[in-house]
Amino acid sequence: MKDLLKLPARTTKPRESGITHVLDSGLSLAGVDGMLEVAGDYVDLVKLGWGTGVVTGNLEAKLALYRERGIPAMFGGTLTELAIAQDRLDAFVARLHELELGYIELSDGTINLDHDRKLELIAALSEEFTVLSEVGSKDDTRIMAPFRWVEQISSELEAGAWKVIAEARESGRTGIFRHDGEVRMGLIDEILHAVEADKVLFEAPRKDQQVWFVRRLGSDVNLGNIAPEEALSLETIRVGLRADTAVTDHDDR
Amino acid sequence: MKDLLKLPARTTKPRESGITHVLDSGLSLAGVDGMLEVAGDYVDLVKLGWGTGVVTGNLEAKLALYRERGIPAMFGGTLTELAIAQDRLDAFVARLHELELGYIELSDGTINLDHDRKLELIAALSEEFTVLSEVGSKDDTRIMAPFRWVEQISSELEAGAWKVIAEARESGRTGIFRHDGEVRMGLIDEILHAVEADKVLFEAPRKDQQVWFVRRLGSDVNLGNIAPEEALSLETIRVGLRADTAVTDHDDR
Amino acid sequence: MKDLLKLPARTTKPRESGITHVLDSGLSLAGVDGMLEVAGDYVDLVKLGWGTGVVTGNLEAKLALYRERGIPAMFGGTLTELAIAQDRLDAFVARLHELELGYIELSDGTINLDHDRKLELIAALSEEFTVLSEVGSKDDTRIMAPFRWVEQISSELEAGAWKVIAEARESGRTGIFRHDGEVRMGLIDEILHAVEADKVLFEAPRKDQQVWFVRRLGSDVNLGNIAPEEALSLETIRVGLRADTAVTDHDDR
Repeated sequence: MKDLLKLPARTTKPRESGITHVLDSGLSLAGVDGMLEVAGDYVDLVKLGWGTGVVTGNLEAKLALYRERGIPAMFGGTLTELAIAQDRLDAFVARLHELELGYIELSDGTINLDHDRKLELIAALSEEFTVLSEVGSKDDTRIMAPFRWVEQISSELEAGAWKVIAEARESGRTGIFRHDGEVRMGLIDEILHAVEADKVLFEAPRKDQQVWFVRRLGSDVNLGNIAPEEALSLETIRVGLRADTAVTDHDDR
Repeated sequence: MKDLLKLPARTTKPRESGITHVLDSGLSLAGVDGMLEVAGDYVDLVKLGWGTGVVTGNLEAKLALYRERGIPAMFGGTLTELAIAQDRLDAFVARLHELELGYIELSDGTINLDHDRKLELIAALSEEFTVLSEVGSKDDTRIMAPFRWVEQISSELEAGAWKVIAEARESGRTGIFRHDGEVRMGLIDEILHAVEADKVLFEAPRKDQQVWFVRRLGSDVNLGNIAPEEALSLETIRVGLRADTAVTDHDDR
Repeated sequence: MKDLLKLPARTTKPRESGITHVLDSGLSLAGVDGMLEVAGDYVDLVKLGWGTGVVTGNLEAKLALYRERGIPAMFGGTLTELAIAQDRLDAFVARLHELELGYIELSDGTINLDHDRKLELIAALSEEFTVLSEVGSKDDTRIMAPFRWVEQISSELEAGAWKVIAEARESGRTGIFRHDGEVRMGLIDEILHAVEADKVLFEAPRKDQQVWFVRRLGSDVNLGNIAPEEALSLETIRVGLRADTAVTDHDDR
């Protein structure tokens, strides 16, 4: 069908931009297979959301399946934070190697992590892993000024992060978004004024948010916290195959 | 279990009324099998939502599966519109034949299509396909007066449309619904005053909307944009097996 | 991974507390298998939501699968109510035995059931079944005073109910919750002042509600109306593996 219509160009795998980062919050093996059957060309990276990797009944089989299918998988930053908070980071890192995981997320959503210490950790971890660090508090009572976002993103990239994740959570109601899910446009503008768009991965779980970023930054914007069943929908948004691209259309379903 | 309780009568397949039109926005083959295992008796028609048919990784296999299981499948109207806008309608129609698709949706949610031209297209396409035309702007800033809805629905049926879809989108927040998802009751009344209910397919993605239509028009109202995992729930609403039928109950989950 | 981190203790199956009661509103057999692959250790009990058991295409095969996997399954209270309202309770009970279902829910969300009659039914049914009775009107225009909740819960336990379900519906917007989904904390406090927490099963379909109960009552609170795809997420909330436990974070997705 693609030959029939004029569609915007898209990067192909392995992507440095135009990345779709999927949030796997508990897929079965059959669920993984189904997602890849439908949207395998568009799923660049998968995160086993928050601490689900610890309690899911199919961890090793699922990681093996992702590996076999060429999809890098990683744990959610919550686990890295817990390991740090419980003084178990070395054991955690060793376990990642055992599980053959090449990616790690370093966030500070639930713990107080001095930013210099965070930069040191990024530097150290980036020798062994592809590091995604995360900026933007999970706690929506602590609003961070745009210049702080820029400072943190820039320094974390400099320290060795592959990409910096701009936080929004699964709900899309904090970090780079307001309580009602609306994009903090001024914040995004300040970030993009100082940092290359390709180096940032914007969490955008809601359709209206995805539409906003694609309109603002084009088909090949990096987007994260995408639900598995919406990876295909996001691709249609990227390439202009979705009629309802009005930002006012909040589709909560 | 059905023998045990007194339940309202329902039409059976192939249905002319009481149609459930499912929105497949990216099912895997296993997902299609699961939906039909659970609700095969109630799924009358499937739409591959908007342009997902172009980018899904399993298009031909999925269409073959639907065909094998006796479920008519069709593309979303967005694709027809794109083909028209890019002057590729003939090639699009040829492709539908190659894919053995007998249904086509003709909408004008994203393009400006003169209504006389729309009627001509309906007339022409209805010689080769079962045509579902769609009325009601996707753009919720353009509210259309009820008499215009009636005029358009009536003339499109006369031109050869099998059913006319009353637009609501996947979100259920435009067209026949207000921004908050509430039914525009006066509009529905005017439509039903002039047009046979069986000839209209109401998009009603939300449970409270489905409840409203079943209460207003009975078990055998035609409803569309039903999520695959809610086809069974809709059937329970149709036959009075769902306790919470209060219109005030917006279940956003 | 569990060995790596310090996590709160949890009860194990078969549980008397810390129960996760899943709402199966139309899973396929493959869907059941997937849920149990991922979260089998945490799914204690499954309810075929409202009247879906009557119309689902896979009823007997699904009940056999649950039985084989050691997961007690039951119908939604809506069916018991319909059977009572249609004077078919004996036939319904006989059918439950044929289907080898050992659990029954007795609710009065849609019918007027004199409370003394409800207690008699609980007493009678509890000789043949494990009875879950439900308290709290589905009709959110009828607010019930806390002392009435306590009276009803206490007397229903005394009559023989194994647990009493504190009603919230699938939407989490009525019964023990306000219209906006917020917990009626004063109500919960009064209930817990009078009744052992282990004897109550709180319906809590939304993440913020689950977080509230786990914070208030600990990892081993009994929670119901959990969506199949969220059974794993709930487990992470129970054992502190989910960062975003802020009650203010309503995640509608």
